[in-house]
Amino acid sequence: MGPLPRTLELFYDVLSPYSWLCFEVLCRYQKIWNIKLQLQPTLIAGIMKDSGNKPPGLLPRKGQYLKSELSLLKQHFQVPLKFPKDFFSVIIEKGSVSAMRFLTAVKMENPEMLEKVSRELWMRVWSRDQDISEPQSILAAAEKAGLSAEQAQGLMEMISTAEVKKKLKEVTEVACKYGAFGLPVTVAHVDGQTHMLFGSDRMELLAYLLGEKWMGPVPPTLNARL
Amino acid sequence: MGPLPRTLELFYDVLSPYSWLCFEVLCRYQKIWNIKLQLQPTLIAGIMKDSGNKPPGLLPRKGQYLKSELSLLKQHFQVPLKFPKDFFSVIIEKGSVSAMRFLTAVKMENPEMLEKVSRELWMRVWSRDQDISEPQSILAAAEKAGLSAEQAQGLMEMISTAEVKKKLKEVTEVACKYGAFGLPVTVAHVDGQTHMLFGSDRMELLAYLLGEKWMGPVPPTLNARL
Repeated sequence: MGPLPRTLELFYDVLSPYSWLCFEVLCRYQKIWNIKLQLQPTLIAGIMKDSGNKPPGLLPRKGQYLKSELSLLKQHFQVPLKFPKDFFSVIIEKGSVSAMRFLTAVKMENPEMLEKVSRELWMRVWSRDQDISEPQSILAAAEKAGLSAEQAQGLMEMISTAEVKKKLKEVTEVACKYGAFGLPVTVAHVDGQTHMLFGSDRMELLAYLLGEKWMGPVPPTLNARL
Repeated sequence: MGPLPRTLELFYDVLSPYSWLCFEVLCRYQKIWNIKLQLQPTLIAGIMKDSGNKPPGLLPRKGQYLKSELSLLKQHFQVPLKFPKDFFSVIIEKGSVSAMRFLTAVKMENPEMLEKVSRELWMRVWSRDQDISEPQSILAAAEKAGLSAEQAQGLMEMISTAEVKKKLKEVTEVACKYGAFGLPVTVAHVDGQTHMLFGSDRMELLAYLLGEKWMGPVPPTLNARL
């Protein structure tokens, strides 16, 4: 029997494109590295409020840079990112409370579906420029991910319960306690120590911490399989 | 004869620890990749002012994170970073105008010494927690880098000239025109296109753009030589 896998917690929000990049990289490497990935749906608005930080896209020159950088990262990471036409309305105004509460309910009731439903929500908002704030939008993503209409409806009913609201709030508070001021945040538990890493661009540093091999955002063993 | 080397411009300020990481990585890879590295001493305060951005260390939770992250990056990048005890006084209050004007003068008069003098200034402020704002501090770095006392004194006299002041201002404006809102900024000129990359964590993406191989922040061929 080899050494026990190290636990990695990924705190993410589907509003955050860099969370998507980080999510895909960790989903790929969970099949390669000796890790146990715990997906933690988090509310980015709660993190911004608690830390006093502001979304980077609000500074005009940063916003412009993010746009051009994401079109390069899209190719490099092989994640089909596309900037929403009306960034301000989609990302800042509409937000992700319902979507992240839905993912919280998925994690409680159908945890084996969390990866797929999260990905389908990102595919909507950060690839096809589709809404993720209306119930029918979230239900469509859930069904596309493989949940039955009945399951999806049941989870949708859960998002207004105190239990789900409280759970999302708690996870967001945990991220803040780890020191989050944005997302994605990866928390690595290695040899009794806890390391918090911010951003999708710390995966090579994560490999270094884990003593695992970094093979780029699309590891070749996976690449060969695609 | 192989293909012509691609020009990379590195805009940096010695106040910025991430600029140091980027600088060392590019100095290492200039011996491996088919690139021509142009060092561009820039004033970070000018970039912050022009873009409306704020130094990340000013948000308390970000400041705390930077500190713990830099101690990991120090090992991973093999750059002897150490956080100054009085960050606010050294980085925000004292700043780097004289140091960056001095480097501007070095670039004009002794360009072959720019890499070494830049490194010695970083060694002072970001490794040994020593001043870089007083003339004698800058002269000490210059002499440690290999300039004679006479050469260093001559360059020091240049920093109050209109020519040097204007040059530093111009380079800072060029960085802003490329879209800079912080440093380091790497501008890659590839196949008639210009790509601006922000941060020390975009070197793998840079390799992808250049069609070169990324071998981590300490490429093994160099590692073997150390």
